Amino acid sequence: MTAPDFLGNTRVVLVRTSHPGNIGAAARAMRTMGLSRLVLVTPRHFPDAEATAMAANASAVIEQASVCASLDEALAGTSLQFAFTARSRALSHAALPVRDAAAAAAVAARTQQVALVFGNETYGLSNEEVLRCNRLAFVPTDPEFSSLNLAAAVQVAAYEIWLAALAGSGGAVAPAIELASHEDVEHFMAHLEQSLYRSGFLHPGNPRRLLDRLRRLFARTGLEREEINILRGMLASWDGTAGPHGR
Amino acid sequence: MTAPDFLGNTRVVLVRTSHPGNIGAAARAMRTMGLSRLVLVTPRHFPDAEATAMAANASAVIEQASVCASLDEALAGTSLQFAFTARSRALSHAALPVRDAAAAAAVAARTQQVALVFGNETYGLSNEEVLRCNRLAFVPTDPEFSSLNLAAAVQVAAYEIWLAALAGSGGAVAPAIELASHEDVEHFMAHLEQSLYRSGFLHPGNPRRLLDRLRRLFARTGLEREEINILRGMLASWDGTAGPHGR
Repeated sequence: MTAPDFLGNTRVVLVRTSHPGNIGAAARAMRTMGLSRLVLVTPRHFPDAEATAMAANASAVIEQASVCASLDEALAGTSLQFAFTARSRALSHAALPVRDAAAAAAVAARTQQVALVFGNETYGLSNEEVLRCNRLAFVPTDPEFSSLNLAAAVQVAAYEIWLAALAGSGGAVAPAIELASHEDVEHFMAHLEQSLYRSGFLHPGNPRRLLDRLRRLFARTGLEREEINILRGMLASWDGTAGPHGR
Repeated sequence: MTAPDFLGNTRVVLVRTSHPGNIGAAARAMRTMGLSRLVLVTPRHFPDAEATAMAANASAVIEQASVCASLDEALAGTSLQFAFTARSRALSHAALPVRDAAAAAAVAARTQQVALVFGNETYGLSNEEVLRCNRLAFVPTDPEFSSLNLAAAVQVAAYEIWLAALAGSGGAVAPAIELASHEDVEHFMAHLEQSLYRSGFLHPGNPRRLLDRLRRLFARTGLEREEINILRGMLASWDGTAGPHGR
């Protein structure tokens, strides 16, 4: 039994982490479960001696970690992104329990890049960050005390990924659908926004809430590569006939 | 959904723990999963400020922890005891993966006292200690790096216990979202088709395949009632500015 290669297609993204010890503990948690690609978005302190100490013998994960200036950069190239949140978030594209999320991730990671995204220790992920991801996931907890430590949440997620990968390495291979990349989805969303300003549906005063609703709708869908082409073709056709501003 | 009462029959026993921070982190891990009975066998430092700090808001678990002079004392009254060990231990009784161990524990804990027993950070449990327990359990890990942090192992075990307890009590309740009616979706699809003819995206010769793709996309999403209103508003805005054929 060795770590299935496709675990290499799964990255853990830690966003705005405050405590370097948690980065180290998360690295160790990953390594015990065959994961080694760690991406840090604007960590408060990194590199840091405490991160290295908490990583114990998983220091290679820390040494090879990438540091990014934005979540978009961290998600570049991924087609499936799980935003980990506490369960009660009101922004509800249906959140998957981590076990189901891991099963989906293990299938996708055979052919595509997958990200598991965790927010700041105190504030978690912002709504905007969550909407950069096309899935929501949560670790089921006692609702009276849902405050998981960051590295503990990474440990549980990595454990489920490892089990799902093990289960999958013997079983049948589900047909892989080619999902749209993060960049393709962002380009589509930008095009949609532009087109809706032009049509007068969006006004400079009110756009965010409606755009967030649309993001949520499409995130839930898990857009496929070919669908993006169809949707952008539709937008172009509407743009092209847009009367006074068109053609 | 509240913590099933029988979680109160499950205790976590930490034997000869070296680092008080791990005791605190284990307490927090337990509390997130509805466990609150912590028993410490000859901890090196306890009570300790670092244990309290790492417990965060789970300090009640630390304050109510018992300290015992021997493992026998810690296991008094229990009828099922899982000794957690690294998988490769050359000991006789068959070790259960933590998921199976949790399932057995959740059943037993309805009527009996259960213990989950974890050894020292560096040395684990001694053979003699393992033999005080009537079951062996392990957390599956990458065999090339099986060194789980103590609190991380407690977190995974507590997580599996919590899920097993939930499964036994009817499970989690999904939040109710108001989905669009079949008729609403059909009206939207008809509007979309009309609008795409008008924009020139669809031609009388080729429409079905593309429309079917769009149907599939929206079917997968599970459109909500409010989303239909937004989508139809968007279509109306595009229709309204449709140049030569518009207005």
